[in-house]
Amino acid sequence: MDIGYARVDLDRERRQGLPEIVYGPGKQAHEIAGILEVLLDRNDGPVLVTRVGPETAAEVRARVPGGRYEDAARLLVWRPALPLGYRVAVVTAGTADGPVAAEAAAVATALGLETAVIRDVGVAGIHRVLAVTDELREADSVIVVAGMEGALASVVGGLVETPVIAVPTSVGYGAALEGVTALLAMMTSCAAGITVVNIDSGFGAALAAYRLTRRRP
Amino acid sequence: MDIGYARVDLDRERRQGLPEIVYGPGKQAHEIAGILEVLLDRNDGPVLVTRVGPETAAEVRARVPGGRYEDAARLLVWRPALPLGYRVAVVTAGTADGPVAAEAAAVATALGLETAVIRDVGVAGIHRVLAVTDELREADSVIVVAGMEGALASVVGGLVETPVIAVPTSVGYGAALEGVTALLAMMTSCAAGITVVNIDSGFGAALAAYRLTRRRP
Amino acid sequence: MDIGYARVDLDRERRQGLPEIVYGPGKQAHEIAGILEVLLDRNDGPVLVTRVGPETAAEVRARVPGGRYEDAARLLVWRPALPLGYRVAVVTAGTADGPVAAEAAAVATALGLETAVIRDVGVAGIHRVLAVTDELREADSVIVVAGMEGALASVVGGLVETPVIAVPTSVGYGAALEGVTALLAMMTSCAAGITVVNIDSGFGAALAAYRLTRRRP
Amino acid sequence: MDIGYARVDLDRERRQGLPEIVYGPGKQAHEIAGILEVLLDRNDGPVLVTRVGPETAAEVRARVPGGRYEDAARLLVWRPALPLGYRVAVVTAGTADGPVAAEAAAVATALGLETAVIRDVGVAGIHRVLAVTDELREADSVIVVAGMEGALASVVGGLVETPVIAVPTSVGYGAALEGVTALLAMMTSCAAGITVVNIDSGFGAALAAYRLTRRRP
Amino acid sequence: MDIGYARVDLDRERRQGLPEIVYGPGKQAHEIAGILEVLLDRNDGPVLVTRVGPETAAEVRARVPGGRYEDAARLLVWRPALPLGYRVAVVTAGTADGPVAAEAAAVATALGLETAVIRDVGVAGIHRVLAVTDELREADSVIVVAGMEGALASVVGGLVETPVIAVPTSVGYGAALEGVTALLAMMTSCAAGITVVNIDSGFGAALAAYRLTRRRP
Amino acid sequence: MDIGYARVDLDRERRQGLPEIVYGPGKQAHEIAGILEVLLDRNDGPVLVTRVGPETAAEVRARVPGGRYEDAARLLVWRPALPLGYRVAVVTAGTADGPVAAEAAAVATALGLETAVIRDVGVAGIHRVLAVTDELREADSVIVVAGMEGALASVVGGLVETPVIAVPTSVGYGAALEGVTALLAMMTSCAAGITVVNIDSGFGAALAAYRLTRRRP
Amino acid sequence: MDIGYARVDLDRERRQGLPEIVYGPGKQAHEIAGILEVLLDRNDGPVLVTRVGPETAAEVRARVPGGRYEDAARLLVWRPALPLGYRVAVVTAGTADGPVAAEAAAVATALGLETAVIRDVGVAGIHRVLAVTDELREADSVIVVAGMEGALASVVGGLVETPVIAVPTSVGYGAALEGVTALLAMMTSCAAGITVVNIDSGFGAALAAYRLTRRRP
Amino acid sequence: MDIGYARVDLDRERRQGLPEIVYGPGKQAHEIAGILEVLLDRNDGPVLVTRVGPETAAEVRARVPGGRYEDAARLLVWRPALPLGYRVAVVTAGTADGPVAAEAAAVATALGLETAVIRDVGVAGIHRVLAVTDELREADSVIVVAGMEGALASVVGGLVETPVIAVPTSVGYGAALEGVTALLAMMTSCAAGITVVNIDSGFGAALAAYRLTRRRP
Repeated sequence: MDIGYARVDLDRERRQGLPEIVYGPGKQAHEIAGILEVLLDRNDGPVLVTRVGPETAAEVRARVPGGRYEDAARLLVWRPALPLGYRVAVVTAGTADGPVAAEAAAVATALGLETAVIRDVGVAGIHRVLAVTDELREADSVIVVAGMEGALASVVGGLVETPVIAVPTSVGYGAALEGVTALLAMMTSCAAGITVVNIDSGFGAALAAYRLTRRRP
Repeated sequence: MDIGYARVDLDRERRQGLPEIVYGPGKQAHEIAGILEVLLDRNDGPVLVTRVGPETAAEVRARVPGGRYEDAARLLVWRPALPLGYRVAVVTAGTADGPVAAEAAAVATALGLETAVIRDVGVAGIHRVLAVTDELREADSVIVVAGMEGALASVVGGLVETPVIAVPTSVGYGAALEGVTALLAMMTSCAAGITVVNIDSGFGAALAAYRLTRRRP
Repeated sequence: MDIGYARVDLDRERRQGLPEIVYGPGKQAHEIAGILEVLLDRNDGPVLVTRVGPETAAEVRARVPGGRYEDAARLLVWRPALPLGYRVAVVTAGTADGPVAAEAAAVATALGLETAVIRDVGVAGIHRVLAVTDELREADSVIVVAGMEGALASVVGGLVETPVIAVPTSVGYGAALEGVTALLAMMTSCAAGITVVNIDSGFGAALAAYRLTRRRP
Repeated sequence: MDIGYARVDLDRERRQGLPEIVYGPGKQAHEIAGILEVLLDRNDGPVLVTRVGPETAAEVRARVPGGRYEDAARLLVWRPALPLGYRVAVVTAGTADGPVAAEAAAVATALGLETAVIRDVGVAGIHRVLAVTDELREADSVIVVAGMEGALASVVGGLVETPVIAVPTSVGYGAALEGVTALLAMMTSCAAGITVVNIDSGFGAALAAYRLTRRRP
Repeated sequence: MDIGYARVDLDRERRQGLPEIVYGPGKQAHEIAGILEVLLDRNDGPVLVTRVGPETAAEVRARVPGGRYEDAARLLVWRPALPLGYRVAVVTAGTADGPVAAEAAAVATALGLETAVIRDVGVAGIHRVLAVTDELREADSVIVVAGMEGALASVVGGLVETPVIAVPTSVGYGAALEGVTALLAMMTSCAAGITVVNIDSGFGAALAAYRLTRRRP
Repeated sequence: MDIGYARVDLDRERRQGLPEIVYGPGKQAHEIAGILEVLLDRNDGPVLVTRVGPETAAEVRARVPGGRYEDAARLLVWRPALPLGYRVAVVTAGTADGPVAAEAAAVATALGLETAVIRDVGVAGIHRVLAVTDELREADSVIVVAGMEGALASVVGGLVETPVIAVPTSVGYGAALEGVTALLAMMTSCAAGITVVNIDSGFGAALAAYRLTRRRP
Repeated sequence: MDIGYARVDLDRERRQGLPEIVYGPGKQAHEIAGILEVLLDRNDGPVLVTRVGPETAAEVRARVPGGRYEDAARLLVWRPALPLGYRVAVVTAGTADGPVAAEAAAVATALGLETAVIRDVGVAGIHRVLAVTDELREADSVIVVAGMEGALASVVGGLVETPVIAVPTSVGYGAALEGVTALLAMMTSCAAGITVVNIDSGFGAALAAYRLTRRRP
Repeated sequence: MDIGYARVDLDRERRQGLPEIVYGPGKQAHEIAGILEVLLDRNDGPVLVTRVGPETAAEVRARVPGGRYEDAARLLVWRPALPLGYRVAVVTAGTADGPVAAEAAAVATALGLETAVIRDVGVAGIHRVLAVTDELREADSVIVVAGMEGALASVVGGLVETPVIAVPTSVGYGAALEGVTALLAMMTSCAAGITVVNIDSGFGAALAAYRLTRRRP
């Protein structure tokens, strides 16, 4: 449906079974509101807006009632999903990876996943990783959020048998190359069968985890 | 266990629940055979050797009976797993992506996944992709194997709701940069929630698919 | 002709048959005005100034009467060309590609091309691309504007037989590498015979389309 | 149509209006022959096989009668098109760019374009470029084949008003980075409206030129 | 000599015969003044400070009398050299290359070279380059300042037999990669024997030209 | 001393206290022999030749008696040093890192370091790393040899307080970028105070370890 | 210990023998204070906070008494270590490398190393390097801080026999690539056995030097 | 003049004053001979063919009498120039840089320059560089040939006041990136006014030196 400033995909939910998620950056509050109104009207499932600052969020919520704003995740949520009984662990290497983990966790929760965030278990203190092994193994899948050299993905990949979704972050400086080093390192991890999403994409990791629940019954 | 030329990890199967897979390149036939003997003796599950040429494969099989050699996949398999009742579709963009798809399919099959290979559905002939949509949707997850610009991953990611594991291949020349372009493109795909493994790593994709079956019951 | 702060090429229109287009960035309003006066005086065809902000545009128009300012395209136009009877379709993958498409469309229109913009047909919703196939085929050529992985160029290239000019955009983050990934991906597209211009260069694509009309009669 | 080792796209000619072109590398002679037989049987237009060495070419021709082999272009042609009355000039910067130009010219000719190759007009001897200006201007479009710094594309782009398709080549060493430097340089050319195809892709340039003839009547 | 915040090299002039040039960025006005005082006191030749903004320049000149400020070049000069009877031509591809050319020209002039700036002779209008051939040939050496694809260096290198010093600039966007493309292109130029200095380094080019005057008598 | 085909540095041992090490590649057996003769004659300490194949080694040893050839390390040694009472542990991530570790160990041993190689302790089996923690802590310093994502360096750096010298290797494929990924990852390691040498440079790591013994008494 | 916004590693000092160092960026004053209180309470050794601006530093010190702020190094220190009797020389190539050297020196001093900073001995004035040779040789190890081409590391590496820790800095422009060129150059230095840390990481170099004191007694 | 397989530039010598130099790679002996015959017939100055292997060289000389083959430089020379009374020093960092230096020296000599090669003065043994300072200062200009980190260019640039032409070589491994690191390092050298040519281009450096002799009298 063409609403003047955007062509809204009204069929994704029905067609593909995935929720409606609006990418916030570059859109004004009234434009976001317009898209939201159409999506909320024509579909039934959750509707999310990612990467929205607090001012824009307030303005959007003033226009479209019923939404919740997740500060740390910079996420707007309407009609969060009911719990699906699927548990995802989001584990971070360092404090600075927090915002990306927050986005992953908030999106996953809004989509109905049970989410636990396990913080600050960088591999330079390997006992911290080992201390949470059981917690990691109890999850149905693990999202690993790490910048710099991204080594946490390899260690976690060797501890659990479940799906591991690695999110490289732009944390670090110099040779970290704004996340490219972590991305390449996770790609060539010695832990077999881990997968990788885009730099800083907590959102992408959450969606990937959500897809894990979409198996043929 | 240290067998002179390698320290064999005997506990992975028990500890992590993942099968034993030996990376073939750089190892001589008698070394592979030695590792195989230990693994077959101490564990119960499947044992695989990847990226083995036909001569080495023949020599290994002469030393360690009971193995099967998958020619197109360059894979040696002992004690293939029983079917797990999980279906993975391996779809390729072009003929040249065939060997990587073959590795993905053979490894997945050996690990107990039901595997279907769907060939040559490059996006420049988009009707070919659409023609196999139902087949893709019936699978529990999809492995997309594509080189050059790797666009097939985005199209498939928009057609199915199940997990999509993208494998960039080194197919192409010039700006394909030996697979780096496909890798980057798949990473920044407009299809939400698809994940990516290393260039040409059919093996990595199969393991990632196998992990999808390892959910908490 | 040297007007103190610039050497104005007065012969391009006559010599090469291409219109006069001034690149705005780094030039002050009075300098742009000075160049415009010379060009309008000595030549007969359209005169354009690209990438001009609204304040500078207002100041230039105050000095040189008769110009029109295209806001979304950040383009100043004097003496737009008469319609040439040539139709170009400008198609974008996502909302964020809009400004680049706007520049392409405005420049093309000012040069006499009939221009239609088709918005938001990203390949993750392939039915949206297919829904506009006829529209794309009716055009004499197609400009494809896409960031991230740039896959739309390949899909469109496989749908039409006419010239396809791909414009990679800097839309995306992380592995998008500010447009370099889309550029490389479009370059190594599996759709034969598509061509590519510089990142974010709506202007370059429009000129390339204009050249298509300059065939020997 | 699935012929065992390949899924042959039988509808491209009819659906898209573009000729059938088989990419040779990685295919054995009997496989190429098999694909050719299907394409020649079901379609009417030209059928080409690119990048084929002389031995394979001989073997294919022994299996599928009626084909012609273009040595310098490493191209196999069946049913070349009738002349379309469209003239393309292929101009090279140096002797080493010859093979890429040969591929461009042979493919263009097989598709019905009238093709002239203008050799060795590198910009370090700018008078050589100027000497052929008229010849370039008489063509309906120009394919510029250049390696190293690829500057010829900019100079030609400033001399003609017709479409310019630049082909960067991997000619050069060191800072030439196997064609990447020429590719980037052509992309950021100061000559407005020139377009670029993949490194060494004489084939891609020829197809792009062929698309120029496919305008709506 | 250590003056607290810097170790001043007092012997370069005497030891190496090159003038004293202070790099401005990161130094405060009073620090620059302190260094200048020592250099002016202990040496006899020209003393320059590069890349100084107007405010800092004013403050430095208030502290150290006798200096001149070149606005366009952002250069401070004390004791400019007497003319050496050596002529260098500084030629630019486009208006945006102006500041780099200004630095080259101002530094060269301050060191005693006779300097002529030839502006806006980009290769897309090759007649503009040819129109200044005689001027270029009359110089003892030529500094070519060009961004984007940097092709002017190749054309000039083919027109003159004297030394050509190419300065890539960060002019351009997208594939220009902030000057890296021009740098690589100039490095792999088809014009034999041209040399290259760092991106945007008008200063470096001027020093290289000055060295040309330092031949054994 | 100039011996015709090389200028031999006879003073390094005396001047700098470091041993004489000849880089083998690109030198013929008789040239290596000539250099060895001078070094053995004029100095007293160990003399090594690195990266020498078995044939060349045999020929050199036939010409210069008294040398030993370390096969796995491809190293020739004359006059190995007496033990210095300094212990270095060389730890590798995988079997394929073996040759680099062998070079590090053999060079270190020849220079008088007590060397222990700990093999195959990749972080995907973190228990294997932990199992050798005591061994690592007993060493005076640790050389970590790892390719792919190079994560072992971070884990070891967090386990020991002594100097850690990381050697990235070219082991891996695709995103491993021939060792560049491991190099960058080790550089941006979250383990504080680890240092890195060149890709595959077992030799460089051994020399760095040797320097650790050269503290002022 | 989890203090709400961070998981504080209380065992590193005891477990690994390395001091507690908090990375400042991205943390608010009250968060830093909270972490400091825990660390000061539970451990005995030095506690540092790196890369803290003056305002944050003042606020932290107001909350946690007893700290010292090193302005040039942007470092906060509690309980600096007693002198260890180990001498490290920090040598810089140019004035702009000063802040990185200041961080290295302040961290090293706080950890108990005797530190001397030797300033502005760039290799373009090689006599300046030679003039400090004795000073360099008297140190137990040398930290070389250099941007641009980083050549000082090679020269110093050839002058001393003790450990050399090279820190590439982001000083320079254009081809300096924000420190990547210096990093690569130091990595491939012709001086054997020098080691490298991350770009601008004065902190990393100081820690590496501190590790040098941690040898088995 | 078009001789069938090449368009020979007969006017360069007269037009530009530079000698005729044929690039050998990719040309067959009879083709080189054909070009030589035309050049020798129509011009008067030196004619060179670069990068020719010994077999091709022998065959060319058999066809075109009077030529000389420089083995180490892989250069063919006809009619070498009379001495111009201009002295260039070619200095190398290591033995492996020899072939590039040999090309530089042989081309320079053939063009009439007096050439001295100074070998193996890498900066890790800085006294070796200093020992040749006088020799370097006596030359009219210096060509510095260095791979790995290319630091020799900076040191020499600080020792002489005459022109310095730096040639990065592909010597080194790993982080040397086949010469790209040396190229970037030389570009961003702290020695003011040095210039750089392409990787391994001894030929380019010699031509650049030759241009230095072409000043207006």
